[in-house]
Amino acid sequence: MAYPRLAPSSSLPFLLLSLICSLVSAQAYEDATIKTMEDFSGYPLHERNDPFGGSSSLPTSLSVDGDSLQRQIDELSTFSDTPAPSVTRILYSDKDVLARRYIKNLMGLSGLSVREDAVGNIFGRWDGYEPGLPAVATGSHIDAIPYSGKYDGVVGVLGAIEALNVLKRSGFRPKRSLEVILFTSEEPTRFGISCLGSRLLAGSKVLAEALKKTTVDGQNISFVDAARYAGYMKGEDDLSNVFLNSGNYSAFLELHIEQGPILEAEGLSIGIVTAIAAPASIKVDFEGNGGHAGAALMPNRNDAGLAAAELALAVEKHVLDSGSIDTVGTVGILELHPGAINSIPSKSHLEIDTRDIDEKRRNEVIEKIHQSAVAIAKKRSVSLTEFRIVNQDPPALSDKSIVKAMEDTSKELNLPHKLMISRAYHDSLFMARISPMGMLFIPCFKGYSHKPEEYAASQDIANGVKVLALTLAKLSLD
Amino acid sequence: MAYPRLAPSSSLPFLLLSLICSLVSAQAYEDATIKTMEDFSGYPLHERNDPFGGSSSLPTSLSVDGDSLQRQIDELSTFSDTPAPSVTRILYSDKDVLARRYIKNLMGLSGLSVREDAVGNIFGRWDGYEPGLPAVATGSHIDAIPYSGKYDGVVGVLGAIEALNVLKRSGFRPKRSLEVILFTSEEPTRFGISCLGSRLLAGSKVLAEALKKTTVDGQNISFVDAARYAGYMKGEDDLSNVFLNSGNYSAFLELHIEQGPILEAEGLSIGIVTAIAAPASIKVDFEGNGGHAGAALMPNRNDAGLAAAELALAVEKHVLDSGSIDTVGTVGILELHPGAINSIPSKSHLEIDTRDIDEKRRNEVIEKIHQSAVAIAKKRSVSLTEFRIVNQDPPALSDKSIVKAMEDTSKELNLPHKLMISRAYHDSLFMARISPMGMLFIPCFKGYSHKPEEYAASQDIANGVKVLALTLAKLSLD
Repeated sequence: MAYPRLAPSSSLPFLLLSLICSLVSAQAYEDATIKTMEDFSGYPLHERNDPFGGSSSLPTSLSVDGDSLQRQIDELSTFSDTPAPSVTRILYSDKDVLARRYIKNLMGLSGLSVREDAVGNIFGRWDGYEPGLPAVATGSHIDAIPYSGKYDGVVGVLGAIEALNVLKRSGFRPKRSLEVILFTSEEPTRFGISCLGSRLLAGSKVLAEALKKTTVDGQNISFVDAARYAGYMKGEDDLSNVFLNSGNYSAFLELHIEQGPILEAEGLSIGIVTAIAAPASIKVDFEGNGGHAGAALMPNRNDAGLAAAELALAVEKHVLDSGSIDTVGTVGILELHPGAINSIPSKSHLEIDTRDIDEKRRNEVIEKIHQSAVAIAKKRSVSLTEFRIVNQDPPALSDKSIVKAMEDTSKELNLPHKLMISRAYHDSLFMARISPMGMLFIPCFKGYSHKPEEYAASQDIANGVKVLALTLAKLSLD
Repeated sequence: MAYPRLAPSSSLPFLLLSLICSLVSAQAYEDATIKTMEDFSGYPLHERNDPFGGSSSLPTSLSVDGDSLQRQIDELSTFSDTPAPSVTRILYSDKDVLARRYIKNLMGLSGLSVREDAVGNIFGRWDGYEPGLPAVATGSHIDAIPYSGKYDGVVGVLGAIEALNVLKRSGFRPKRSLEVILFTSEEPTRFGISCLGSRLLAGSKVLAEALKKTTVDGQNISFVDAARYAGYMKGEDDLSNVFLNSGNYSAFLELHIEQGPILEAEGLSIGIVTAIAAPASIKVDFEGNGGHAGAALMPNRNDAGLAAAELALAVEKHVLDSGSIDTVGTVGILELHPGAINSIPSKSHLEIDTRDIDEKRRNEVIEKIHQSAVAIAKKRSVSLTEFRIVNQDPPALSDKSIVKAMEDTSKELNLPHKLMISRAYHDSLFMARISPMGMLFIPCFKGYSHKPEEYAASQDIANGVKVLALTLAKLSLD
């Protein structure tokens, strides 16, 4: 599907590559190292001999093909389970599988060798002339929460592939290999676990165990069955083979829309992330006696729905009481059971997200939310049947030398920029555990994200890709 | 399905009747008056000549077959879309169709002639020896909200059929015809309209128009398509043929579990309803900008979910402020969009139920709820995109002579009883518009209803059936 629709949207070099691609496909099929991916993607791929020859000095001109990149962003957004302009792409759904195929095809057309791990993290590698050295990696995610937009994550995957194309077109030859990573399930939508792929790459044994044994989605489909449906975890009974050593990468970069209003408001092209806020998520269940909405008198009620409403407002209060602009808290999920107009809710379920750049301050908020949940349950005579902190991650600091490299590059390209923190968290938060990390932000319309109105201008995306490409080139020569 | 499972659970008279029933089925198939029902139910039915002969004086002994009645209640509860002990039976679902078939079969076995109208109100008639007189009717509903119990409504349908069996076994012969009514969709679950069947019988032109033209369920299935799926509205393009004249019945009675704790607490067998509280329901939608749970700072948010939480608590406050124990209000439905943990709710939807025996006081509460919705929207900069009063019905008063008949009967049977009001509303609320009305309550465990723990003791049900039977006999001789 993606293959024919790719061609018309491709620039000349792309067309040449797809030609080469089809010519060498027969030989490619005999190449054991990529056969698995072949089988899965259904598209011909190849190890490509650089037709440009290439040099190991930094590129002097960087030409981003903004039109192709925009068309790819638009095409990818059509792999969605909800109507445009909204995008809904849930982990291991049919649309997710098609979108992954589309990305792997682009990687192949760019001459990257593609590898997938057991959970579907996808790696597209451009070998450097010293392939033995730790590589320089960049990437993001393409999964999308229900009714969201087409730029979150996607800019950091398609933009990364284009960054490597830019370097290839410029004739640059990397010393360290350059790698584009598509991370599995940065969004927690399906299994309630955010940054699932990067958490595993960073070596979370607890998560590996949970995924194999206990993790199910809302329809009670196990993670393993869902992964197999999408063509992963075939045979693998051990997820520890997904873990990466900390020596694996010398640097990791992620390009991403800001998802906040600052860069746009200040008219800046580039945000250089110095730290990523510490996220935590909590699941809460209340239970009461329910009953008939007409017959049960108010004094005799213990309404689990009103307990949930009170807790939602308590979350907001405790977050605001922290006194810091950097503390945020959200109740994104609030469900009532049985959910009938004439029935008093007998059960309620909340999912709470809270973040801060200050881990201690965030943990104090979580403690206050817990105290409120207990107090509300007591006051309303409902039982607090669950208060589970699903994850409570520390913040991550960017690597100073990578920050400097991104700053220098922005200056060289005359792009107005600033140092900032990321309040949203990203796969970079977990990659920082096994590699020096840096993040690049570009402006987005009104800071909107996670909704259909999410938008980033082609020019801003192109600027981000330029900074990414040149920074990758520098780091690959380190 | 219901038929074979009925036999083993049936008492001796039932087995005899089923025998007669199968013997006469051939002739029954030629009876035009019941052919439609035949076709639909798939079970043989018949007009039966009373084998007991019978007398027109009041019965001296009333023997309720409590065991069969309990087994029928248990059997009916198995037609459910959720696991026992919960019951979920939604209008026009496959399980609803099977349950209706089961009831029509019982009516047939009791020798009642069965008629269905265009929306599936079902009438089982025992002709009196003066069939020209307005009949005496009794009945209730069998639809069940999600995850509810097996007695709400059901006791008033199966109990009514058993009441007629009691009279038949006693040899009684009614002067006015006696009719058992199964009302379509007393619960608002599927189309948001409570007492859909009885509202139509009472002649609501507005509802008839809405059902034909605009009414859809949560999956956007039209009422007409749903009705046709269940075998109704075949050909009928005019729902006004469902309307009944006010002269149609000389009296209507409904037997129902109290759905409140009073009778059990006071150790009484029978509650005689003097008035039914005035119900109203409201739908509310808030809309905000949504956004990313991490990136959007608290001061920049307009969270539609928190607006909903505030309104839910405001409903409770305004209800309590009324100062009357008879005022109740419930938020049974509260939904957030998009419903992801890391996404600020951009939309919220509430459905509010409020009732009172004092219509004016209830309407004042509704007005306060509206004022709060407006104020909350203003304060949180969200838009109040809908505030719709779906229904706002007046209370209903029971007919004094029917109340007296129920009181006298309770005394004659030495059953401790009291006069009380019904805070839950029922099809009787609407039948009162076209007929003198009365309601009988029996105790239920802790007043529980609309949940799996709902329970009424066989002895209490039998007492209710006795009072119903004898009262019907008296009214039929009026």
